[in-house]
Amino acid sequence: MEYRAINLAEKLGKVSELWSPRVIAGLNDYRFKVARVQGEFVWHAHEDTDEAFIVLSGQLVIRFRDGEVRLSEGEMFVVPKGVEHCPVAEDECHLLLVEPAGVVNTGDAGGERSAPVDQWV
Amino acid sequence: MEYRAINLAEKLGKVSELWSPRVIAGLNDYRFKVARVQGEFVWHAHEDTDEAFIVLSGQLVIRFRDGEVRLSEGEMFVVPKGVEHCPVAEDECHLLLVEPAGVVNTGDAGGERSAPVDQWV
Repeated sequence: MEYRAINLAEKLGKVSELWSPRVIAGLNDYRFKVARVQGEFVWHAHEDTDEAFIVLSGQLVIRFRDGEVRLSEGEMFVVPKGVEHCPVAEDECHLLLVEPAGVVNTGDAGGERSAPVDQWV
Repeated sequence: MEYRAINLAEKLGKVSELWSPRVIAGLNDYRFKVARVQGEFVWHAHEDTDEAFIVLSGQLVIRFRDGEVRLSEGEMFVVPKGVEHCPVAEDECHLLLVEPAGVVNTGDAGGERSAPVDQWV
């Protein structure tokens, strides 16, 4: 059988929209997603799940109501479920996200910045 | 509140044993683990879960009974549950693993190369 490596940079190269995570792999009922982000996203929370952010390139700030965390390449953070957060990237930043299938990027906030759910690339 | 980034290289620097994954973060009932590997591991399968391998540095070959996949830095692969595999690294390789809490590194094979389960670093 042929087994194929999943190259993160190659997958990111196929994503043109910002703030629109695309699935690259499944792990049981969890999904790995890549995302290109720049600028400020929307404040939101995921009421039912934690959400993992891994920075592949660039820098990401995740703002919380009572603080923030700054992530550089090779760093990660898990936002606990129910915690309001707002991701911000001054310059373009590439992310690997891990979360259960079915998670909407805007969480409880919804709105026009909601991306298609679990769309593969 | 103080929020702290998890630096993958810093965590790997605290792991001295080969083939002994250490937990660096939790995501619901899943765990992120870093591992330093070199040489050949044991053939095994995880009967109840998929297992994600992400190569942070170096190269990893995952052998299967009917093929193999070669992973370089920035590449990943998810071994489906129940599939026998044997990870091999000619030179030292650094990995990020994602799998449910409670997974034993040697799976169904057991034996002396079984590492402590869910030990944090």
